[in-house]
Amino acid sequence: MTVSRHRTARWLPRLLAAALVALITPAAAPAQQPPPGGAPSAPAQPAPTQPPPASAGPADPQLIEDLVAANRILAEQGVLDGWGHVSVRHNRDKNRYLLARARAPELVSAEDIIEFDLDSNPVDAKGRALYAERFIHGEIYRARPDVIAVVHTHAPALIPFGISKVPLQPVYHRSAFISGGIPVYEIRQAGGMTDMLIRNQALGKALAATLGDRPASLMRGHGAAVVGPSLPRVVSRSIFLALNATLQAQAMALGGPLTYLDPEEARLIEEREGFGLARAWEAWKQKAMSKR
Amino acid sequence: MTVSRHRTARWLPRLLAAALVALITPAAAPAQQPPPGGAPSAPAQPAPTQPPPASAGPADPQLIEDLVAANRILAEQGVLDGWGHVSVRHNRDKNRYLLARARAPELVSAEDIIEFDLDSNPVDAKGRALYAERFIHGEIYRARPDVIAVVHTHAPALIPFGISKVPLQPVYHRSAFISGGIPVYEIRQAGGMTDMLIRNQALGKALAATLGDRPASLMRGHGAAVVGPSLPRVVSRSIFLALNATLQAQAMALGGPLTYLDPEEARLIEEREGFGLARAWEAWKQKAMSKR
Amino acid sequence: MTVSRHRTARWLPRLLAAALVALITPAAAPAQQPPPGGAPSAPAQPAPTQPPPASAGPADPQLIEDLVAANRILAEQGVLDGWGHVSVRHNRDKNRYLLARARAPELVSAEDIIEFDLDSNPVDAKGRALYAERFIHGEIYRARPDVIAVVHTHAPALIPFGISKVPLQPVYHRSAFISGGIPVYEIRQAGGMTDMLIRNQALGKALAATLGDRPASLMRGHGAAVVGPSLPRVVSRSIFLALNATLQAQAMALGGPLTYLDPEEARLIEEREGFGLARAWEAWKQKAMSKR
Amino acid sequence: MTVSRHRTARWLPRLLAAALVALITPAAAPAQQPPPGGAPSAPAQPAPTQPPPASAGPADPQLIEDLVAANRILAEQGVLDGWGHVSVRHNRDKNRYLLARARAPELVSAEDIIEFDLDSNPVDAKGRALYAERFIHGEIYRARPDVIAVVHTHAPALIPFGISKVPLQPVYHRSAFISGGIPVYEIRQAGGMTDMLIRNQALGKALAATLGDRPASLMRGHGAAVVGPSLPRVVSRSIFLALNATLQAQAMALGGPLTYLDPEEARLIEEREGFGLARAWEAWKQKAMSKR
Repeated sequence: MTVSRHRTARWLPRLLAAALVALITPAAAPAQQPPPGGAPSAPAQPAPTQPPPASAGPADPQLIEDLVAANRILAEQGVLDGWGHVSVRHNRDKNRYLLARARAPELVSAEDIIEFDLDSNPVDAKGRALYAERFIHGEIYRARPDVIAVVHTHAPALIPFGISKVPLQPVYHRSAFISGGIPVYEIRQAGGMTDMLIRNQALGKALAATLGDRPASLMRGHGAAVVGPSLPRVVSRSIFLALNATLQAQAMALGGPLTYLDPEEARLIEEREGFGLARAWEAWKQKAMSKR
Repeated sequence: MTVSRHRTARWLPRLLAAALVALITPAAAPAQQPPPGGAPSAPAQPAPTQPPPASAGPADPQLIEDLVAANRILAEQGVLDGWGHVSVRHNRDKNRYLLARARAPELVSAEDIIEFDLDSNPVDAKGRALYAERFIHGEIYRARPDVIAVVHTHAPALIPFGISKVPLQPVYHRSAFISGGIPVYEIRQAGGMTDMLIRNQALGKALAATLGDRPASLMRGHGAAVVGPSLPRVVSRSIFLALNATLQAQAMALGGPLTYLDPEEARLIEEREGFGLARAWEAWKQKAMSKR
Repeated sequence: MTVSRHRTARWLPRLLAAALVALITPAAAPAQQPPPGGAPSAPAQPAPTQPPPASAGPADPQLIEDLVAANRILAEQGVLDGWGHVSVRHNRDKNRYLLARARAPELVSAEDIIEFDLDSNPVDAKGRALYAERFIHGEIYRARPDVIAVVHTHAPALIPFGISKVPLQPVYHRSAFISGGIPVYEIRQAGGMTDMLIRNQALGKALAATLGDRPASLMRGHGAAVVGPSLPRVVSRSIFLALNATLQAQAMALGGPLTYLDPEEARLIEEREGFGLARAWEAWKQKAMSKR
Repeated sequence: MTVSRHRTARWLPRLLAAALVALITPAAAPAQQPPPGGAPSAPAQPAPTQPPPASAGPADPQLIEDLVAANRILAEQGVLDGWGHVSVRHNRDKNRYLLARARAPELVSAEDIIEFDLDSNPVDAKGRALYAERFIHGEIYRARPDVIAVVHTHAPALIPFGISKVPLQPVYHRSAFISGGIPVYEIRQAGGMTDMLIRNQALGKALAATLGDRPASLMRGHGAAVVGPSLPRVVSRSIFLALNATLQAQAMALGGPLTYLDPEEARLIEEREGFGLARAWEAWKQKAMSKR
């Protein structure tokens, strides 16, 4: 049911281009190794071969609190499984971002947050394991000055759309940001055969290029990257991207013509997308933070 | 997949009519502004340009308790997300209704309840933000003297039916009120291109007109408005409107002929729709109020 | 989408028969009245026009405990909504059964349990409201000496099958009791146009006749009646009847030939259907009783 | 909808072969009897007719703790119902494995764990009831030296695929182990008409033969057996085998061509399948162990 093998020939030039990009790009910090013998463990991060980037200074405590809340909310809402992550741009320096150490989102606390530069090198990891796919964050912040927060999700409802040819369409006002289309990142175009993970800057740059100026990009056989101008906005978009996928599939199953949001309706909604978001955020946060 | 653009010409006269209605209708209290910079906040309500309506006096404490319970139940049952709302007509004055300040339903307490007149002006908002779509409530109470309680929901299961041409049909006794049809409100007919929200009296009146004498109206690309002769009834109808949508879609997927409730069966059920509702209400309330 | 109207002529003789049965049958205790004005309340049971039946004496406390557990388990598992019920035959007298007063199953406690005779008259209701549909229990106990416990459910997953022509088939060992077929009770055949409820002995007898010697009967547009030789068995059958419906629909949607249980496989499983049930019962009970 | 009856003739030689295997195989410990009268109970295990196997000595307490966690996690995640089980190979002796007494997984504690030899005889059951299907574990450990942990599940999402002809395909990186195919065990081939349970070594050997070198085998009309090189891996595979089934069905319902993981992608993912698993395990374990 896949036609991927027949397309391999067409990818070769892209593979060469990706290889060139990879050669030019400075080597990223070594990625976490798989645990020996299949037993889970949290290997310490090897020392980087270059001096760590300088800190932009302490981040706004409210921003840290909201980042922790975003982790817990997205886990509680079923958007982030044990491997997803969410970051925010540093409030003092647009060339720094904040992301947890490699930990399941529902367990993330303020002390787990680490500062990174846009090459996704940590300022001071204190020997803790890092997300192998942090390059998703660094490369999107580099390519998109308007983006303040980034989510990487494996939300189940998105997987079917990522592997099909059916485009996501906005079923209702909560998901108006979908209007204009959600691109699908095909990692084979940038990296050929991979383990699907965004393990380096080259793959992160390719993802950012697919994302373009859109609020999200699906990732075939993997999940999605969602971006926004604030943590509440990226949390809301992540929740409703997944919900829209479920509802669109249900609507398609009903059959017959469907009326999606008109682009102009979507534009008018988007103009005030954050409208009223404070009250959903209050409820999400209280529910998520009261657990455990 | 939408045919809406081709129909625009037909709407023009309706748009003109709606514009006229809007001109005649006194300006509503200014709606809540989106938070600056995407950061969530609860902006204070600007002072209205006309004196606030007089209070009908304190409402029955039991009614307030039930209104708080209705908020929590509908959130707990998945019918109300962070943006939905539920109101009840004031027990002392049919020209007043009670609705929470702009707050997520699962967090609403007695002190959040505000009294409104049928123009949806608050008696005393105490500077708190209001639901932008409170006109749904005011205009339905004005048009439907039989209605005691109103719910505005974005229940996911209703969205697919709202954007399709498949009519809701009653699959079982719990949803007998569906018999006779649930209309679908197309905001484009009253407002052309909008941000989908019922932001003023004109749009609220158009919704009430679509609702007619029915117990609910879907709202295309948005959700639904559900009405009833009591809070328990409107809560029950909201829950089972959404459940009926799910079950009807499942039944249709099975294929073959389906036996929906006969109109006479539905009429006989409706005659005693509240029958036994007290025992479901007791369980819903205890479950919802024991949270947090 | 319903063909029911065209079949009305065929039902007429059955309607006459049902009317005759109703004339012969002694009048049941008056059913609970709908609350006035739609406001929920628990009306007291009017005094019956004949002396109440004698008690068989106190039931085994363990049986009462299990009946309470069955109520809570089936609510916790989503099989019973606020209106469903479960009963057990009295351990001292096969002509008596035990059923809660009209209360949501998740709230039922030992003090809510009332003893009934097979005409479904209470021994001593103490003025409390009764389930209007208790005749489901009385008439099945009368017709089926092998039955020890009865569940009346509105489990959502069963509704689509009840209104379609697709027969339930056993998808796996947990639902082997489905082999041989689950009949569908069409209340129009016994009662013509009704409010769908089994409000008297005549309708209860007709349901018992449809059930025959089977472990369950769907009820079109309503739910199902499930029976078993013990409370754990009827609880298990109720859970897996609903789960089978969901899984069969999913399997049918995959398309192509499906391999249901062979009748001989089902027979061999049924021979020891209770096998290992004690361990699921222990877990269900602990989970359900630890709530609230 | 089943073609099984027409194939019976083809099975006869296999039935004879299975019977021969059963004759050669030493009789397993007598299986648990169904409770009398349908009432749940936990019958004591009859004394075996041969001396019990010798113990390999106390297992690593960490392994026991992880086995208890695996039971609770898989119950909490909906993968194990009250009848499923999970085992681990003894850390001191590859010819011994550890499995709970016959108890619902969500209730299993360290004191419930019993040591078995590969014939699935208990070292010391202390009179407690045993899982009738423990032969799944013993025979897979015998046939697969690489396997350290085994799960037997009735996960609902797997049932439709087990009874259909649609092969499972890997929809995303979390389920890369599916690439290469998941076989379906047809118990009729080894045992003809049965009660579907793996009640003896012969049926266990046939299941192990169907499994071959794969990470899992569906079991038609029953569930699945899942294996892995560690408890976290088998837990992860069990969760994502079921999730993949759900997502593949959703993707197929969307229609059109689907891009499953390329075998080479799957191979690269599998090379580091345990990567990052420690952080999901930490979250799963904390959530599951904090209940009750």
